[in-house]
Amino acid sequence: MTSDAVTPVLAHVDAHLDESLERLMGLLRLQSISTDPAFKAACDKTADWLVEELAEMGFDAAKHPTTGHPMVVAHDDEGEGFHVLFYGHYDVQPVDPLNLWNRDPFDPAVEETPAGKVIRGRGAADDKGQLMTFVEACRAWMAVHGTLPIKVSMFFEGEEESGSPSLIPYMEAYGEDLKADIALICDTGMFDPQTPAITTALRGLAKLELVITGPNKDLHSGMFGGAARNPAHVLSRILADLHDEDGACTLEGFYDGVPELSNAQKAQWENLGFDADGFLGGVGLSVPAGEKGRSVLEMVWSRPTCEVNGMTSGYTGAGFKTVLPSKASAKVSFRLVGTQDPQAVLKAFEAHVAARIPKDCSFQLLDTEGSPATTMEIDHPAFEAARQALSDEWPKPAAFIGCGGSIPIAGYFQKLLGMDSMLIGFGNDDDQIHSPNEKYDLTSYHKGIRSWVRVLDALSEI
Amino acid sequence: MTSDAVTPVLAHVDAHLDESLERLMGLLRLQSISTDPAFKAACDKTADWLVEELAEMGFDAAKHPTTGHPMVVAHDDEGEGFHVLFYGHYDVQPVDPLNLWNRDPFDPAVEETPAGKVIRGRGAADDKGQLMTFVEACRAWMAVHGTLPIKVSMFFEGEEESGSPSLIPYMEAYGEDLKADIALICDTGMFDPQTPAITTALRGLAKLELVITGPNKDLHSGMFGGAARNPAHVLSRILADLHDEDGACTLEGFYDGVPELSNAQKAQWENLGFDADGFLGGVGLSVPAGEKGRSVLEMVWSRPTCEVNGMTSGYTGAGFKTVLPSKASAKVSFRLVGTQDPQAVLKAFEAHVAARIPKDCSFQLLDTEGSPATTMEIDHPAFEAARQALSDEWPKPAAFIGCGGSIPIAGYFQKLLGMDSMLIGFGNDDDQIHSPNEKYDLTSYHKGIRSWVRVLDALSEI
Repeated sequence: MTSDAVTPVLAHVDAHLDESLERLMGLLRLQSISTDPAFKAACDKTADWLVEELAEMGFDAAKHPTTGHPMVVAHDDEGEGFHVLFYGHYDVQPVDPLNLWNRDPFDPAVEETPAGKVIRGRGAADDKGQLMTFVEACRAWMAVHGTLPIKVSMFFEGEEESGSPSLIPYMEAYGEDLKADIALICDTGMFDPQTPAITTALRGLAKLELVITGPNKDLHSGMFGGAARNPAHVLSRILADLHDEDGACTLEGFYDGVPELSNAQKAQWENLGFDADGFLGGVGLSVPAGEKGRSVLEMVWSRPTCEVNGMTSGYTGAGFKTVLPSKASAKVSFRLVGTQDPQAVLKAFEAHVAARIPKDCSFQLLDTEGSPATTMEIDHPAFEAARQALSDEWPKPAAFIGCGGSIPIAGYFQKLLGMDSMLIGFGNDDDQIHSPNEKYDLTSYHKGIRSWVRVLDALSEI
Repeated sequence: MTSDAVTPVLAHVDAHLDESLERLMGLLRLQSISTDPAFKAACDKTADWLVEELAEMGFDAAKHPTTGHPMVVAHDDEGEGFHVLFYGHYDVQPVDPLNLWNRDPFDPAVEETPAGKVIRGRGAADDKGQLMTFVEACRAWMAVHGTLPIKVSMFFEGEEESGSPSLIPYMEAYGEDLKADIALICDTGMFDPQTPAITTALRGLAKLELVITGPNKDLHSGMFGGAARNPAHVLSRILADLHDEDGACTLEGFYDGVPELSNAQKAQWENLGFDADGFLGGVGLSVPAGEKGRSVLEMVWSRPTCEVNGMTSGYTGAGFKTVLPSKASAKVSFRLVGTQDPQAVLKAFEAHVAARIPKDCSFQLLDTEGSPATTMEIDHPAFEAARQALSDEWPKPAAFIGCGGSIPIAGYFQKLLGMDSMLIGFGNDDDQIHSPNEKYDLTSYHKGIRSWVRVLDALSEI
């Protein structure tokens, strides 16, 4: 069902897709890697870019400094009635290992692939391509009708990929400026390339870096090997012991607050016809690695995880160096569900390490950070309106789904501003976000813009 | 007991120590890192440097090309009777992590330390400082007496720190040119700073790099975490399982061929008064990490070891990246004793990995390499002559000792040229070879030169 107001806007989107794409390319060229201080100026420039684009469209847009990377906030109050706050992030993940990219990650291009056209570049999917679907939908509405059908505010941060250190302080100070009837967050995926989705369950995240020190300097393994404690061995034991033989995490109390799926939810997920073999097969795997007796969908949507994201010790360059390393370190993260307490998980990890650290080694936990899981309230009429609008655009009807990723902002909007969030995104499982050769399907971009045109219209009717 | 011939040579050494030191500094400035192809030209230049020095002294010296770095061979046949071949290596270990050095590793200097003057720089102890003790002893003999007291050949390789790939082919082709009554090898240490040593037992070495592949690319841990196999977890399990709770290596058949110390040997080592607490305490440790029930001296001299020298997986840069890595790898080496078979150890490691690798992960073993342990025959009269000469130079009498390091050349000399080796070196435990801030005590250099003067004289008497 497509209203009279929507039809010419969709036609405008189709006719001007190349310009929308050009603008996205401009945004993708900006090297806004938030975690690396070397790219601080690039992050700032990216915020400026957004402010200029939004101001040119007619938004009241401004860059707001923080102790880290700036926030971008924009308002258009000319629409009537319902008020949405759209959230996205303009920062991106680091790009290494660079040699695995098929092109410069910051020189984006549309590439032909066997599965169709894709936009290749760092941030294409996470989150620049996604946030631009909403910006371009607004642009088309304004171009055709002069004004938007509802009140729209936008809120873009530049620290999402580096733990959002400025987010809570900013929201505590300037929350009033961000309040709306509902938040829209575009940082999630489709259920599959034909099936759009509204994500209603998000896992939380706890993370840390563990550094173990043994000898006070790197040693010659021939001279000291056998007698001196090797921290690489200690770290291996600690990491190996994080999981039991059935794939469960062994941390004390880890599963406290992990809810069992209701039978109704289980049935709904089973009816989705999720292709577990295809999901794993697409990345070269065949055997689910998680807890025995759980489906793959449960593993990634409703069960907590414990993963080593990186580890290093000793000599890792070319050739061989028979060194006995002084230090060994690992970056470890946990995806949390239900009411799992991130601080309790971090404490349990610390106890796990302390119980396995030999008398003459020491350890540090660095950069510890945690945010709990979030479950959306879907009673708000915006959910059904958006589900209908998405179903009108895509081949298959939209689904309410879970998501393995962590998007703490939804929890913060609820807690700090009393505002529900609706998560709609157009990513696909093979987008390779956080990896080399990140891409966003051209279809995701094009139909993503069209989807928001429909959602804006649908929200004006509730 | 110092002979009439020796006294003026020792006086010459003392009077010209500064020039000897200047020459060593020149050699230390050459960046001969053999394992890194970027330093190939520097290795070649270092060989040229040695040829020039030796030719200037009167040796018939030449550089011999190999498929890797060149060999340097020099002869002086003017002496009478006994003929020694002196072996050393002119290549050095890589220098990273560079930020832990207190100076540019290739800009050497004499530094004052609380324990006395040291020569600081990469290769100062391993092996440029050591090989120069012999070269400078010869120079002093020739300066004072015109000729050396015995026949001397020298043989320097440039690949010792990168597995000596050209050594065996070279010795097979040109072995006749290297044959002598005995080989002298200067790449080992003192028993302690007061006690010189002749090393009579060397451990062998087996090494490899293990690379485990799980998913075919790095994944987003939120999207795939829990369901996708994480190769960092697999690697941790494999490495953790290499040792049991008592510190013994768990590889099948690993201790085959490991001899027990004779009671006599055990008694001799106990009498050395080795300070195990000081040995470990010097590197910030207090608890021996090796097999339960073994002394620290056994651990480092007579027991085999299994050590992780390096490992890496996933994101190891600054900040955090919630990646689920595609690969995880480790460099592992084994020190071997007795008649342990390096190939059997490598095979046992492969079986250990194969038994722990999940169905949908794969693994590769790269750069596998092995050499067996060596025990010297000390019946040759040169051993007693040298022991006496060393005892004359140093505060305490010389000891016959074991060594944790691996110096495969001694085994090759025996096997390919039927030639016994005598290992005499002046390094100390705190020389930080293979580590940042490598040094060689000025005393090691000065008294090392004087020691060789005495040994040359002693060998002319047998």
